[in-house]
Amino acid sequence: MTPASLDAADDLARFRDEFVVDDPRLIYLDGNSLGRLPRRSIVRVAGLVEAEWGGRLVRGWGEGWMAAPRRVGAKLARLLGVETDEVLVADSTSVNLFKLAVAALRARPERRTVVTDDLSFPSDLYVVQGALDLLGGGRQLRVVPSPDGLTVPTDALAAAVDPDTALVALCHAAFKSSFVYDLAAVTDAARRAGAWTLWDVSHSVGAMPLALGAARADLAVGCSYKYLNGGPGAPAFLYVRRELQARLVSPIWGWLGHATPFEFAPTYTPARGIDRFLAGTPPVLSMAALEPAVDLVLEAGLDRIRAKSIRQTEYLIERWEAELAALGFALRSPRDPARRGSHVSLGHPEGWRINRSLIEEMRVLGDFREPDNLRLGIAPLYTTYSEIHEAVARIGRVVRDRLYEKYPVERSAIT
Amino acid sequence: MTPASLDAADDLARFRDEFVVDDPRLIYLDGNSLGRLPRRSIVRVAGLVEAEWGGRLVRGWGEGWMAAPRRVGAKLARLLGVETDEVLVADSTSVNLFKLAVAALRARPERRTVVTDDLSFPSDLYVVQGALDLLGGGRQLRVVPSPDGLTVPTDALAAAVDPDTALVALCHAAFKSSFVYDLAAVTDAARRAGAWTLWDVSHSVGAMPLALGAARADLAVGCSYKYLNGGPGAPAFLYVRRELQARLVSPIWGWLGHATPFEFAPTYTPARGIDRFLAGTPPVLSMAALEPAVDLVLEAGLDRIRAKSIRQTEYLIERWEAELAALGFALRSPRDPARRGSHVSLGHPEGWRINRSLIEEMRVLGDFREPDNLRLGIAPLYTTYSEIHEAVARIGRVVRDRLYEKYPVERSAIT
Repeated sequence: MTPASLDAADDLARFRDEFVVDDPRLIYLDGNSLGRLPRRSIVRVAGLVEAEWGGRLVRGWGEGWMAAPRRVGAKLARLLGVETDEVLVADSTSVNLFKLAVAALRARPERRTVVTDDLSFPSDLYVVQGALDLLGGGRQLRVVPSPDGLTVPTDALAAAVDPDTALVALCHAAFKSSFVYDLAAVTDAARRAGAWTLWDVSHSVGAMPLALGAARADLAVGCSYKYLNGGPGAPAFLYVRRELQARLVSPIWGWLGHATPFEFAPTYTPARGIDRFLAGTPPVLSMAALEPAVDLVLEAGLDRIRAKSIRQTEYLIERWEAELAALGFALRSPRDPARRGSHVSLGHPEGWRINRSLIEEMRVLGDFREPDNLRLGIAPLYTTYSEIHEAVARIGRVVRDRLYEKYPVERSAIT
Repeated sequence: MTPASLDAADDLARFRDEFVVDDPRLIYLDGNSLGRLPRRSIVRVAGLVEAEWGGRLVRGWGEGWMAAPRRVGAKLARLLGVETDEVLVADSTSVNLFKLAVAALRARPERRTVVTDDLSFPSDLYVVQGALDLLGGGRQLRVVPSPDGLTVPTDALAAAVDPDTALVALCHAAFKSSFVYDLAAVTDAARRAGAWTLWDVSHSVGAMPLALGAARADLAVGCSYKYLNGGPGAPAFLYVRRELQARLVSPIWGWLGHATPFEFAPTYTPARGIDRFLAGTPPVLSMAALEPAVDLVLEAGLDRIRAKSIRQTEYLIERWEAELAALGFALRSPRDPARRGSHVSLGHPEGWRINRSLIEEMRVLGDFREPDNLRLGIAPLYTTYSEIHEAVARIGRVVRDRLYEKYPVERSAIT
């Protein structure tokens, strides 16, 4: 089938019109890093600013702002497959990970090991390292290495979990290779050893159904500016299984996690339930951009999004095989769609310079990730088959015509 | 002088036009809680959303977004009287307080006491309690009581600081009484005992010049949605004196505090300088509202703002004396303008119901604070003398005409 006919048959095609696409020549394959702008978010942010902040002023707190972490959290709960009173929007992913990791480790001091892997987003490793450094007491990190740099077998992970394991802290989808864990199997293996699980779903939420509740996952955090399209630096979220909420206390005793914040009592009493994981004042303006973006994902439906994501990553891999493999590109993502998220990484010795050329003269926006990966994100709500087809053609042209050679080999900090 | 002639002589009068004031009958005396909407912020937020997020997409990170915590921080540094490389915009006040308190306490484990007072915003007490609970080791909080519920003498504070004091953690301006510490004197007293100071300037920043640098204050945090007009839930800021930066490590080892975040190294190495106190991805959208709001404060100038603030709080106190004292209102803020911030609290046994009447039928928006305070905020950038005069008249009417009697005595959670 031609890319145009695939687009014509796409049951999610209408959602592209929900997003601002103002440069039709630009092919955006970085929605896994920063999602496109939903048109509804423009309207909602303007309304929040002008009508609510400007018009209602401080009254806004009682008219929806204070409830927003729970209200938007309840929508996210549907994406996570958990209950509405198990999710909050708050802080950044790093801060939420810190809060939950420290709370979990302190709740079970008899277990001293955190199990993770070397595919995890480095910030997650840093935050857990910091938590262990802070708590001391012989606690340690056990990093399960990926045997191939792309995947981690569930067996290898399960073998690393033992009666000393307090927490298995993993990224559900790997930021570089796109490998996706079997969340239910890993959670089950951890639970059989008495360990809790803390999933970072930043790279999978909004791109596939998550069934954290059915898997009886204990804790999760995630970011909302990738497939959720919440905007640059949008606030993150956290999930705590209801049964654990009373056992865990956030280390950051901020007032909005207090049982009665507006009584201004002199000592801290954590709120009942998920609210105890709040700290400071909610980021109302940012949530105004996020909420309609989450609504779009709910309207499209995660099953349809996941089905299209698989079709489109398969299509990209077909195009790689046909056009790019012979040009020196290696597939750096799992072939099995069940174990792959919504981005595809392609390694090439000239990856850095190829990516520069794609950005500067080809109007293809993906990501470069060390050591030599082009990371190409598929966002099923707005990515078209035609874009994937054309992006592969442009990547091929950059290599065949050696367009990348005019760019310096030296790498700069941010791409 | 009549209020109209005072307004006519006001050298900051033109700044009121910089703000959205869409209901001329509404008297807003809660800018100390949530500042009004600057017109420039409407434009800047729309530009961030549509042109930058919508148009530049992920490229925005290299085009100003990633630099925003430092760029806006450098502007705030002028308001704090410190150097540009000593301030960052990040997270919430609670999270920043946690990061700095834990970092400071860990840096000097031989000192085990934190000195604070009972006028501080309760969240600050909670966060410090949480830090002490987390770190253990016999660390403790010493709360200096206010002898009159309104002020804390510098001598009483200084007497509580001893060689075991690691940190003196105080709110520069008290959220309820408006009492303002002599920051230089307290910082000096702390330093003489070898203690560091951690100032929460949430209730003073933007309302008066701060000279944290000249005072050699060590650490500070603050909120940006009060007198800085950054919008609901705007991100907070932190200050670390340059000489201390290398000695302190944030407990939250997020990637943006890493020396080389985009190299994705497996272990955490804190950045040199103030950047090490970053954690997650910066709240770009919220900073777009904040930055032009800070520019307004810089344009008006803190000396002029403070001079008008004093004139206006004096005027409010004169009006209280003339109109409200006889109706049972007590002044619950310091008489000495040097020791008073930009809000004034008035106690009345029927304070709760009076405030309800003011909101519901008088269109006077202030705050109620336990047990019986009307808290009236003066925001010199937009509050007029006429508003103060009229607000006092309306408060008097509520009491004289017993309009408050129709409201329930029971207090609800949020006002």
